[in-house]
Amino acid sequence: MIALSTETIAAIATPPGHGAVGIIRVSGTCARVIVTKHFASSRRTFRELRPYRLHHGHFFNGTGQILDEVLVAFMPGPGSFTGEDVVEINCHGSPVVLQSILETLLQEGVHPANPGEFTQRAFLNGRMDLTQAEAVAEIISAVSPTASLLAQNKLSGALRHCLQGLRDRLEELRAQLCLAVDFPEEEVECLSPELFLQSVEDIRKQLGILLQGHLQSRIWNDGALCVLSGAVNAGKSSLLNQLLGRQRAIVSPEPGTTRDYLEERITLHGLSLRLVDVAGTRKEAGILEREGLALARQFQDEADLILLVVDIATQAPLGVVKDQNLSLYPPSRTLIVANKCDLKRDPETESFLSNQGYDVVPVSAKNGQGLEELQDRIWRRLIANSPEPRPDALTLNLRQSGALEQAALELERLREDIMQNVPYDLLGVRLESASVILAEITGEITSDEILESIFQRFCIGK
Amino acid sequence: MIALSTETIAAIATPPGHGAVGIIRVSGTCARVIVTKHFASSRRTFRELRPYRLHHGHFFNGTGQILDEVLVAFMPGPGSFTGEDVVEINCHGSPVVLQSILETLLQEGVHPANPGEFTQRAFLNGRMDLTQAEAVAEIISAVSPTASLLAQNKLSGALRHCLQGLRDRLEELRAQLCLAVDFPEEEVECLSPELFLQSVEDIRKQLGILLQGHLQSRIWNDGALCVLSGAVNAGKSSLLNQLLGRQRAIVSPEPGTTRDYLEERITLHGLSLRLVDVAGTRKEAGILEREGLALARQFQDEADLILLVVDIATQAPLGVVKDQNLSLYPPSRTLIVANKCDLKRDPETESFLSNQGYDVVPVSAKNGQGLEELQDRIWRRLIANSPEPRPDALTLNLRQSGALEQAALELERLREDIMQNVPYDLLGVRLESASVILAEITGEITSDEILESIFQRFCIGK
Repeated sequence: MIALSTETIAAIATPPGHGAVGIIRVSGTCARVIVTKHFASSRRTFRELRPYRLHHGHFFNGTGQILDEVLVAFMPGPGSFTGEDVVEINCHGSPVVLQSILETLLQEGVHPANPGEFTQRAFLNGRMDLTQAEAVAEIISAVSPTASLLAQNKLSGALRHCLQGLRDRLEELRAQLCLAVDFPEEEVECLSPELFLQSVEDIRKQLGILLQGHLQSRIWNDGALCVLSGAVNAGKSSLLNQLLGRQRAIVSPEPGTTRDYLEERITLHGLSLRLVDVAGTRKEAGILEREGLALARQFQDEADLILLVVDIATQAPLGVVKDQNLSLYPPSRTLIVANKCDLKRDPETESFLSNQGYDVVPVSAKNGQGLEELQDRIWRRLIANSPEPRPDALTLNLRQSGALEQAALELERLREDIMQNVPYDLLGVRLESASVILAEITGEITSDEILESIFQRFCIGK
Repeated sequence: MIALSTETIAAIATPPGHGAVGIIRVSGTCARVIVTKHFASSRRTFRELRPYRLHHGHFFNGTGQILDEVLVAFMPGPGSFTGEDVVEINCHGSPVVLQSILETLLQEGVHPANPGEFTQRAFLNGRMDLTQAEAVAEIISAVSPTASLLAQNKLSGALRHCLQGLRDRLEELRAQLCLAVDFPEEEVECLSPELFLQSVEDIRKQLGILLQGHLQSRIWNDGALCVLSGAVNAGKSSLLNQLLGRQRAIVSPEPGTTRDYLEERITLHGLSLRLVDVAGTRKEAGILEREGLALARQFQDEADLILLVVDIATQAPLGVVKDQNLSLYPPSRTLIVANKCDLKRDPETESFLSNQGYDVVPVSAKNGQGLEELQDRIWRRLIANSPEPRPDALTLNLRQSGALEQAALELERLREDIMQNVPYDLLGVRLESASVILAEITGEITSDEILESIFQRFCIGK
């Protein structure tokens, strides 16, 4: 079992790189003493680091050399972020200075913090449950303001509160069940099968609503995956550039894990899009390259929306379109981008595609014609089944939704068991199992594996 | 003239990217009021942001939505960094959250800060002189702990103090000169030519010492430029990898501005090295590529040390070595890396090189043989004329050294004028000119051009 370490830990808490300000965070019983030892206040009357005050001065190393001008703040446990004594050292945002200060602390016996160790301590010290700890990481990696607001709601404990309520109801049912088993003659009074069934159904429905909400808000949380497909000469790259250039939100290039595709992120009306250009899907000398195709298919299978770019102005567009193996592009998840609409369009191809049930948007990636309509159509297609969630909506991450699905399954089976008059003492096992799953989500019950898998994904300093 | 703006400004002060903590800095008369308007303290007794206290709570946007859990600190002017009221908002290190908070402030009429605007205000408000303002940027971009320590010394005002002392002496001389001009009959009493000459010489010597120290400490401040030269098959790339892999300090790849060379930074015994692999210097089919050669020559001219890699095991190494046009590699700035020493060595080549005055280090880039000796030799060659400066040494940046050279030149001319008995009233012009130059370094006298060129190189948020 992962136990709370008594070591004092430290890490650089600001992003790597050069900036105006950098922060080193120290947590543990020795935090205050060790930082004080290396801090020279600019006030002559300074005696000690006082709680929640900013102290201005200089931080020096073991040989008395000034490493930087700093602001130091002391946040005493148990009311701090980690629940332990925490000291934050605010210095210039210089990698060299941050490293020198950190090294000075390590020389005093402070341990370098593992990824997520500060938040892990906050959890182990009861400052937050697991859903709140996970919310911290979700805020930091939020892809859009909406995603951040949803994570803030989780950080406030809204999901924990909801799950604890459901678990309380399961535990109450278990207590009644036990009573019915121990005093079977009073069975009807304690818990009738009808009432039992109804309660289980109720709780299962609540889980279903959470899971449904999760599915709907997924693209707002994680961003929507849009895959650009089509023949190489259809103008995919120009379209990608137009989509990147025309939108005003943040564009950050994310190099793919392989060189077979390009990934960029754009924001469309507050919705974050992962635009993946599957460079591999090309036909060369009539032979489709198998590797590129496999990768492209994988992306297409996962895509929230496929943008199939078709050159509407080629000599025989219909032939080219038919070459595309349209079965790979289900109309429900595909938007046809009829590119090169500035040139002569081929009505036969357009009507063929419409007859196949496709949504077709004429665009010129060359001069930008139709681009706004395309952006709007992409956005509307994506949010059709996923309206923007309210900020107080409860969203789940992969771990949480997976566990909730399991819990819902247990309750589904329990429902069947009740209807088949399985004895109450056997039913209790399923109730307990569902209850434990909920407790694992919030971390009331937990295991090393769960904790490790959660916190190792955090950044250092958090 | 750049005047102090009365606008309240704000910027993200932490480096870009994801981290545990992010900071938004606000400065100006409205800083406290505007932040307070969007801050909900977690204490019920909260009334206002109190100076130098950390306030825990939530920051919300214009529609009342919580953007993040924050720590807010208020540092009142004139004792703050900028000399104005400053508020720092400490939130999760999420680019989306930081941007949302910043946007909320901008909607309240706060202006986005220009690069270096906080430090510029500190300067304009008399919180620091120009050498200290420049030291802030030098700390942030410091390439090594030594460079950071030297910049810290400047931040403390040591350079300003020294230059002000020298300027005071110049001004004192000017006053005496004026007296001598106004009361020529008392000339000898006021200021004899001998005394005058000696005083000028004294000050000029002081400037000389500063400039000399600057030259010596340059590689500690900026890092030393080491250029890897030699034929392609000599094993330059393997050597670069060995140098990168073997050293324990920070390695950060810095892509060159052109694709014609590779640049990496390593730290050797506390000295930062820019290792440039001039990929262009190769001989192909007997014709040296001109572009690559021109670039290589430029780097070689600037290099603190050239590592000329020679394949000591080729069939005719001496021929290959002679092909290298050794006149490009002055022995005083060149170290010959006799690579592939694990194979059969050619004594003729080695003795030829030694006779030319070169330092030759046998190395095997393949198995690492001789690598430590090479590192040691590189380091010793570099610091031979540049011993590690004491932390209290005064160093100059390019602007400062350029100006000091000018001032020294004025004093040199003044000395000649005195010796040629030029009238005192004409000498005063030179004295004033030197004095003004010193005042421009510290910023007592300044111009828009100087300020702009200094602060535009700062990062945003500083």
